[in-house]
Amino acid sequence: MFMNFVSAHQVSPADAMTLIDRAEAFKNGTPVPEHGPVYAANLFFENSTRTHTSFEMAERKLGLTVIPFDPAHSSVSKGETLSDTIKTLAAIGVNIAVMRHPADAYYEPLLAASPTLAIVNAGDGAGQHPSQMMLDLMTIHEEFGSFAGLNVGIVGDLSHSRVAHSDAEMLTKLGANVFFSGPEKYFSPEYKQFGPFLPLAELVKKVDVLNVLRVQLERFNSGETAEFSRADYHAKYGITDALAATMKPRAIIMHPAPVNRDVELASDLVEAPQSRIFMQMHNGVYMRMAMLEAVMQARQFGAVPASQAATVRR
Amino acid sequence: MFMNFVSAHQVSPADAMTLIDRAEAFKNGTPVPEHGPVYAANLFFENSTRTHTSFEMAERKLGLTVIPFDPAHSSVSKGETLSDTIKTLAAIGVNIAVMRHPADAYYEPLLAASPTLAIVNAGDGAGQHPSQMMLDLMTIHEEFGSFAGLNVGIVGDLSHSRVAHSDAEMLTKLGANVFFSGPEKYFSPEYKQFGPFLPLAELVKKVDVLNVLRVQLERFNSGETAEFSRADYHAKYGITDALAATMKPRAIIMHPAPVNRDVELASDLVEAPQSRIFMQMHNGVYMRMAMLEAVMQARQFGAVPASQAATVRR
Amino acid sequence: MFMNFVSAHQVSPADAMTLIDRAEAFKNGTPVPEHGPVYAANLFFENSTRTHTSFEMAERKLGLTVIPFDPAHSSVSKGETLSDTIKTLAAIGVNIAVMRHPADAYYEPLLAASPTLAIVNAGDGAGQHPSQMMLDLMTIHEEFGSFAGLNVGIVGDLSHSRVAHSDAEMLTKLGANVFFSGPEKYFSPEYKQFGPFLPLAELVKKVDVLNVLRVQLERFNSGETAEFSRADYHAKYGITDALAATMKPRAIIMHPAPVNRDVELASDLVEAPQSRIFMQMHNGVYMRMAMLEAVMQARQFGAVPASQAATVRR
Repeated sequence: MFMNFVSAHQVSPADAMTLIDRAEAFKNGTPVPEHGPVYAANLFFENSTRTHTSFEMAERKLGLTVIPFDPAHSSVSKGETLSDTIKTLAAIGVNIAVMRHPADAYYEPLLAASPTLAIVNAGDGAGQHPSQMMLDLMTIHEEFGSFAGLNVGIVGDLSHSRVAHSDAEMLTKLGANVFFSGPEKYFSPEYKQFGPFLPLAELVKKVDVLNVLRVQLERFNSGETAEFSRADYHAKYGITDALAATMKPRAIIMHPAPVNRDVELASDLVEAPQSRIFMQMHNGVYMRMAMLEAVMQARQFGAVPASQAATVRR
Repeated sequence: MFMNFVSAHQVSPADAMTLIDRAEAFKNGTPVPEHGPVYAANLFFENSTRTHTSFEMAERKLGLTVIPFDPAHSSVSKGETLSDTIKTLAAIGVNIAVMRHPADAYYEPLLAASPTLAIVNAGDGAGQHPSQMMLDLMTIHEEFGSFAGLNVGIVGDLSHSRVAHSDAEMLTKLGANVFFSGPEKYFSPEYKQFGPFLPLAELVKKVDVLNVLRVQLERFNSGETAEFSRADYHAKYGITDALAATMKPRAIIMHPAPVNRDVELASDLVEAPQSRIFMQMHNGVYMRMAMLEAVMQARQFGAVPASQAATVRR
Repeated sequence: MFMNFVSAHQVSPADAMTLIDRAEAFKNGTPVPEHGPVYAANLFFENSTRTHTSFEMAERKLGLTVIPFDPAHSSVSKGETLSDTIKTLAAIGVNIAVMRHPADAYYEPLLAASPTLAIVNAGDGAGQHPSQMMLDLMTIHEEFGSFAGLNVGIVGDLSHSRVAHSDAEMLTKLGANVFFSGPEKYFSPEYKQFGPFLPLAELVKKVDVLNVLRVQLERFNSGETAEFSRADYHAKYGITDALAATMKPRAIIMHPAPVNRDVELASDLVEAPQSRIFMQMHNGVYMRMAMLEAVMQARQFGAVPASQAATVRR
């Protein structure tokens, strides 16, 4: 099933529900099944507190052995290709590489590079972010119990947003209605298949889930790339306290974080009762456990005959 | 008691003795009590071999699970606040954050940020350095058995020294007499409440413990901040072999390290019989175990009902 | 025997065979003997994916506790000497320091610095690379069963090659015939004691093992240090497909990696049937386990009386 976990494309609605169930079980304290030693490495070629730390935690809770890998101090700095790095890790005995990389679909050439090593995509360029997608689904499912007919708004810096790509695709598959808003020039054609662009005030009133995206910092920086001031963005495209007051009573606010406070979201809304932002982070650990376990099962990593299990060293 | 461990202010004389006893027990091989999984992260926003490595060792000896965190590769570089980073780690399930940060009292706003995460201060700007203080106390206690009436000299770059602040405060509470020396302009008013400034030659003869501070490198660097040459500092304010020869027979030399050899301290004194510098480092591991354990106990981290303990994964 | 493991000089032919046997046993699944806690730190002052990751894996498979150490964030950046860093790690309780450093024989002054800490050399400047040497021997032994009379060619950027130094010395001790080729100006006098320089075409036909060295990148970079274009090097000194076709039927290709594909070696030869390059990486983990275990045994690290073993925490 999940020989690798790289994209929303490979996740069926049934898969999604199985993973959500398993993640909720872990959250409720289901013990991790015993298994032989499995070795994971986390290759983060882009910075991330949340995703990286969350995977580190999930790996330890699953009983994996984590082999440290720092891209900045690796042979990649000697010009080694990503494919040769993956072959090296496989030869050394690493079973699972969790990777984030700025290149779109960086994983495509790697899937063939090593048949013995699984790739779990922790974000590729402007492509996919399947673990964020799955934890978003889990958080929505916890709240509403189902996806069919749910109205989900995805708002903000849609341009090059891997979260928006993955979430919109999967929510649509699951029967939710997806709507977009934010600066209209960021509503690129690939989103049209998933749902319409709405004026922000209209969207906010309509949705059950308001998923607000982080605005890339370079859009505010002085210099050539600056497009907005922070205050301007907040006034025109941000979720202000006034706007949030028009949300449906049971509607929730989500955000992949880190939040630019008072830019895409009023600062006090981050900790407001309708916010699920820290719950998303909390759920992320359990969902990543479920995803990693799915890969381990598909590849039979850690599957040790009972007769040998006693001599296996963790 | 120690919901967080951030400052000498919070440590009573009785607390100090309890921690010293516990650290000495660990040093003597007392086994660590069994406990459920507890997750620690070390957030070092300033470099340190000794303190960082010592905490890493203490955590492992205590059976904690350490989640790696590199500030340089974190979302702090995307402008995330320290408070949001702490909330994120708490949401992910980190129980204890050991932190060093260049801002004075950086921890104050964080104590409220997450009620479920403990902060252990590994040094804040020119503020406090409670784990260095506690290992210094342990080393003195091992040598002399008590603090009352002991003469302790703190010598050198007093300006902005968190070690001097923490040590002077706590030693005074414990009944020791504290004296200061070094470049007199560094003897800032906050030290006067703890003890007088003495000429170096007089102090060296008088004390049982000679605690020598590291001189900040920028004081020697060429350019605007240069105040001394290394040789000048050594001749005027350093502990030379000749000065050390005037110490009391049982007096000891301490230093928080790393030592600028032949600047604040003659190089051969680092390994001399009266030096306790490497013993301080050795004791530091056991003291940090005692401090971390105190925090775990105050918050009941790892306290698992016996009925569930068997299914808990380390 | 191996109180430290730093150089080919210290390895007798009998030692080499003992280590190869042990590494092959680990490869075949021999369980690691139970032992008390042993603490290792990896100090890589030069980048390396393979060697660093391989030691990390070997340490975990041996059941060692690994204390993270990042030279870039250490007190070395405050001007601390390597010797004081080693004394610090020893005082904190680290048992084994695996080190790579750009200075030739950096380890000489450290061997005396701490009698309680073992140094395992993971590569020193243009000196030695004993773990690469041992895994190369293991790979050759697996293929041919013995070394006596075997023809081994070492080809390429011989200048300052620690792999060439270590391999040539040890292979000669074991009775193999060593031949060199590549740009002749890199054939420095120290190699003459081990074997002659041959024209590349002659060497390739003659050898059972063709060990190709990585060309240092700065030799191609534009600017003052440039000596070759990549294509030029490949045509004159590289192993092309045409050259490889002249190898003996059972001869193998080795390379310490990372490979500059189509420079010292035609890209398709990296994965060719006669290549053992990924097998070298695979064997490296087991060989490093054997080397670390030899050091642990020589120093009785982890040797816990049976009566205490039950209370020891890993």
